[in-house]
Amino acid sequence: MKKLRVGVTGASGYAGIELMRILGRHPNVELAAVTSRSLEGKPVIEDMPLLRHIFSDDFKFVKSDPATQAKMDDIDLWFLALPHGVAAEYARELLAAGKTVIDLSADFRLGSLERYLEFYKAEHPAPDLLKLGKYIIPELFDISKSDKLIACPGCYPTSILMPLIPLMREHAVSASGIVIDSYSGVSGGGRKADLMYSYCVRNESMTAYGLPKHRHLSEIEEQLSIAAGSDIVVQFIPHLSPTTRGIFTTIVLPAKFEGVEKVYEIWNKYYASKKFVKVLPSGKQPDTLYVSGTNRVDISAVYDSRTKNLIITSAVDNLIKGASGQAVQIMNLMFGFGEDAGLL
Amino acid sequence: MKKLRVGVTGASGYAGIELMRILGRHPNVELAAVTSRSLEGKPVIEDMPLLRHIFSDDFKFVKSDPATQAKMDDIDLWFLALPHGVAAEYARELLAAGKTVIDLSADFRLGSLERYLEFYKAEHPAPDLLKLGKYIIPELFDISKSDKLIACPGCYPTSILMPLIPLMREHAVSASGIVIDSYSGVSGGGRKADLMYSYCVRNESMTAYGLPKHRHLSEIEEQLSIAAGSDIVVQFIPHLSPTTRGIFTTIVLPAKFEGVEKVYEIWNKYYASKKFVKVLPSGKQPDTLYVSGTNRVDISAVYDSRTKNLIITSAVDNLIKGASGQAVQIMNLMFGFGEDAGLL
Amino acid sequence: MKKLRVGVTGASGYAGIELMRILGRHPNVELAAVTSRSLEGKPVIEDMPLLRHIFSDDFKFVKSDPATQAKMDDIDLWFLALPHGVAAEYARELLAAGKTVIDLSADFRLGSLERYLEFYKAEHPAPDLLKLGKYIIPELFDISKSDKLIACPGCYPTSILMPLIPLMREHAVSASGIVIDSYSGVSGGGRKADLMYSYCVRNESMTAYGLPKHRHLSEIEEQLSIAAGSDIVVQFIPHLSPTTRGIFTTIVLPAKFEGVEKVYEIWNKYYASKKFVKVLPSGKQPDTLYVSGTNRVDISAVYDSRTKNLIITSAVDNLIKGASGQAVQIMNLMFGFGEDAGLL
Amino acid sequence: MKKLRVGVTGASGYAGIELMRILGRHPNVELAAVTSRSLEGKPVIEDMPLLRHIFSDDFKFVKSDPATQAKMDDIDLWFLALPHGVAAEYARELLAAGKTVIDLSADFRLGSLERYLEFYKAEHPAPDLLKLGKYIIPELFDISKSDKLIACPGCYPTSILMPLIPLMREHAVSASGIVIDSYSGVSGGGRKADLMYSYCVRNESMTAYGLPKHRHLSEIEEQLSIAAGSDIVVQFIPHLSPTTRGIFTTIVLPAKFEGVEKVYEIWNKYYASKKFVKVLPSGKQPDTLYVSGTNRVDISAVYDSRTKNLIITSAVDNLIKGASGQAVQIMNLMFGFGEDAGLL
Repeated sequence: MKKLRVGVTGASGYAGIELMRILGRHPNVELAAVTSRSLEGKPVIEDMPLLRHIFSDDFKFVKSDPATQAKMDDIDLWFLALPHGVAAEYARELLAAGKTVIDLSADFRLGSLERYLEFYKAEHPAPDLLKLGKYIIPELFDISKSDKLIACPGCYPTSILMPLIPLMREHAVSASGIVIDSYSGVSGGGRKADLMYSYCVRNESMTAYGLPKHRHLSEIEEQLSIAAGSDIVVQFIPHLSPTTRGIFTTIVLPAKFEGVEKVYEIWNKYYASKKFVKVLPSGKQPDTLYVSGTNRVDISAVYDSRTKNLIITSAVDNLIKGASGQAVQIMNLMFGFGEDAGLL
Repeated sequence: MKKLRVGVTGASGYAGIELMRILGRHPNVELAAVTSRSLEGKPVIEDMPLLRHIFSDDFKFVKSDPATQAKMDDIDLWFLALPHGVAAEYARELLAAGKTVIDLSADFRLGSLERYLEFYKAEHPAPDLLKLGKYIIPELFDISKSDKLIACPGCYPTSILMPLIPLMREHAVSASGIVIDSYSGVSGGGRKADLMYSYCVRNESMTAYGLPKHRHLSEIEEQLSIAAGSDIVVQFIPHLSPTTRGIFTTIVLPAKFEGVEKVYEIWNKYYASKKFVKVLPSGKQPDTLYVSGTNRVDISAVYDSRTKNLIITSAVDNLIKGASGQAVQIMNLMFGFGEDAGLL
Repeated sequence: MKKLRVGVTGASGYAGIELMRILGRHPNVELAAVTSRSLEGKPVIEDMPLLRHIFSDDFKFVKSDPATQAKMDDIDLWFLALPHGVAAEYARELLAAGKTVIDLSADFRLGSLERYLEFYKAEHPAPDLLKLGKYIIPELFDISKSDKLIACPGCYPTSILMPLIPLMREHAVSASGIVIDSYSGVSGGGRKADLMYSYCVRNESMTAYGLPKHRHLSEIEEQLSIAAGSDIVVQFIPHLSPTTRGIFTTIVLPAKFEGVEKVYEIWNKYYASKKFVKVLPSGKQPDTLYVSGTNRVDISAVYDSRTKNLIITSAVDNLIKGASGQAVQIMNLMFGFGEDAGLL
Repeated sequence: MKKLRVGVTGASGYAGIELMRILGRHPNVELAAVTSRSLEGKPVIEDMPLLRHIFSDDFKFVKSDPATQAKMDDIDLWFLALPHGVAAEYARELLAAGKTVIDLSADFRLGSLERYLEFYKAEHPAPDLLKLGKYIIPELFDISKSDKLIACPGCYPTSILMPLIPLMREHAVSASGIVIDSYSGVSGGGRKADLMYSYCVRNESMTAYGLPKHRHLSEIEEQLSIAAGSDIVVQFIPHLSPTTRGIFTTIVLPAKFEGVEKVYEIWNKYYASKKFVKVLPSGKQPDTLYVSGTNRVDISAVYDSRTKNLIITSAVDNLIKGASGQAVQIMNLMFGFGEDAGLL
């Protein structure tokens, strides 16, 4: 079978490294080009030594440029691992050239321009394209090959929406009084020279940040509201913990039913056949260590009869299921590859 | 001035090591004896090499035994760093011999035998002594030299009660709908050979545990209820994160007032003059790294106008302000030493 | 193509987990059985949650027993991830039943019974089988499908022998005055409940151990002596560092030639075409982070004109190239699979 | 007793933080001023939250400027925690004004201008002052209050010279064939925004760097040569390991005598009465965890009868005994305070 030819633009960050690692050994695709503004002309493995056994010295970053990339006729699909605000201009050119675009940035995650402005403090860079963008969690949303612009969920939202959307759709839990605490590994802050992300500042450190309106909150509330059919406002508190990878999320919400039976019934309905969701028995907790390096999300729920609350917990690898792995999973489904191709 | 002669019993755990480290260089006390069942006869520094510059080879663990210790006439005060259930028998003998006892275990933290049974799954080991025990957070409770049996708060409770008790006493926050997420470093699990606490299992791991009724919940609810003057039930969710030390606590509770002014007013009233409590400006987050190795608790609050919730955060070193440091701070106050003697 | 049916015995340690992870997604093999004394009857993913997306709940540990395993007709190859001394008895039975055995223990690494006794402090458990055992570093030794008993190198030896054997064979470096410092991640100590391997004891700790005669020294000296054609004695100093994985090795040895040209010429002759060895330019250092999770070894050399020494450095993932990955690589070559099958 | 008034210039790095932490609670000194170019006017605890219980908000960085500082009449002693090349100009002005200067930089560590040029790639900034500078390891060199310019040893040199100088002075070990491997925690690289020191790059990483001529080598060889009375050239290989603090050093050198008796005899002669040196029994290894946060160096030696080598190991906290603590220890001795004042 002819391989799908794909490119990665903005490949110099942590999500970009993971994309290259996964795509470089994917049985159904050929990674035809990777682009970077800062690393143009440099061998990939010089900047990313982890990939030395996957790529040769000849495989180099090419120039990041929307127009140039749009003219690369033999590339059918581009992954955008770019900052929000920047991704949109690439998407525009690539879409115009008939390419499929899988965007890992926030540019097409939100349906509302106002919400984008409110949370990202800037006018949306491509309002006309907003309708084209499809927000996809592959286990929860339909994907078709005719989709041309995919918005991949953020890392925190993946850990939160995967357990909650099914429950919201089935009206099995309260739509108010929801409190979400998430702890992220340091790679979530990106690959950059910043004292805040230095080893000696993060080691032995646990702290909260981004209160009260982290950008991902916009996406969380929009998707929960769609799922529930009513406006949902949640308390979302992101934190940092000294790990390289992983997000652990703890969700407390007033229960509608006693016990966890209803929750598990719904989760099993949605996820029993899904390869990358593991529904753990009540009382068994997810753990970021055990999803690290995988495209899996693990979820679990406990009911507290004293408080009448449900306590839902989940764990994902922020760079894989929370970013690059999920993007590849979406591609796999769009193009009829095995859902887990390149992801085991 | 003649130094106070003190002893530590059960000195082989992490809290015991910290006690010895602090007391070994305390200007007003002489650490006259340390006891351990398992390490009897062994030089302290052989088991605890960190203390090599504080103690000589001659300083050895003596036998842990209530009767023997009660007869050590020249020791006026004993710290008990023993498991719950075991501490009580030592307390009984030592009190009978007229000693002052500062207990770091859970045996005298609760006022109710039923609650003890419910949370510790065992009959209370010394119901008759319960009334003697005084639960002391030194910034919030009166201490007098006539107290003979002090119950030191647990590590999680310290991080939770210090920000909350003043607000409860002043009825400034809701008494219901409280959600508390705490993340602890691994030393909280104790010094033991257990695969669950091994490096390769905890490194890169974030997870929840002890749901829904961690033992410390009993103490948290009892103290909050006393402070508020009404029964308080909270959702408390402990977690583990890969640090050696530290607890980071995030408390979400429905606000009674808009904004944080009232909260800060109360905190300043209680804490402005307190050496070991730092009230951070709203928006500035505590961080376990910055309390590590100190007897300080840092607290802060944010008001979220979208959810009408207060988000209170705190950080402590679980082994110091959450255990040994606080115990020494109590001793300092009881005996008229400087509050920070040995604790800087 | 019909898949090769393989089993793993002693699958409950870290090497066993890695073997199952690799074999569970290997395109050419079927992992037909995994055995464990302590975990018999338990689902694999209950003990090893990382593998939840690879195995179903039905895949359970079966009994570890040489005779039983020998009778499993449909399994052609067994990996032994057992302690030294124990592996030999399994090897005997399995070989008698005509199986191929790839042994990760030390039982068949040494050619000399005396050396085994000296370093392992026990009589060799199966002297008659010693001649059958072939010690294989796949890039340096010939493998044939007729081999029935393979001894996989230890983790430290892999990091040391891969850069040194080519140089010894070509007599390009001194055979005396060799000093080897290696630092290992904590997983090298095995998966066990031991205070020495607990998080709080290993975190922030760097130390040496096993001086002066670590067991792996026996294998290092034997193989270097074979390569050089003369008896070689080296100074080998193992250390621990707070990482989960990885070995970093620094070798200092008197140079025979000025500069590194000769070293690189030889390395390129041996390794230029090898997928899992990356010869880095002089001055560029290997790093355990960049081999973590891979089957690669990275090596480099610097010549110091002041001391006339060569400084050779290498990095491997102790659990993969240093154990399970190398074992699978050997199988791949024996059975004509792609050398990197299952290993990318 | 009137307290000694001291200042710290260049207080914004890790050594500066430690100096302020130690001096802020030192019983015999008053920390009268701290200076920083980048943080002028900022409260110290805003930049260094760890010190919140030691300093009030009013304690602010003042301008770093040699002339201004020289005019601060009430400050008698200045610690310089500045980069090499910069420290010299401060030293010049402060010395001219009659101040005592304890310099933590490299500017006055070397006796030879050529060596400075060779290793620091710049002309020495103050050749005329070189003779004034006294290189002091407090356990090994005489200190007098008339000394005005003290050069504190570097972190690696401290870990290396303390075990070796006594042996060199007594001609008890070989002066050639010395191989030194040191592993440092990340704080050794300084407090800066640099991708190389970011959490995700250092976590799980072990690597070598600075080969073959790390700057500290100049100081190591100069001091060893002085001690031995002959020119000594050593192989020194620095590495990084994922800890915040600590240096672990492993020294291999050809033995002159069988066994370790002679080594221990000499060490005991030099160090038996020293508070901050712990000579461990042969076979017991130092560990960075157990010197972390202390001003202690732990040393040990093993003799390998197979190789006729001595293996000497040591551990220090790079920021305390390797920098700030040692500087304060020197001050303590110069001014007749207790050697351990402020350092327990």
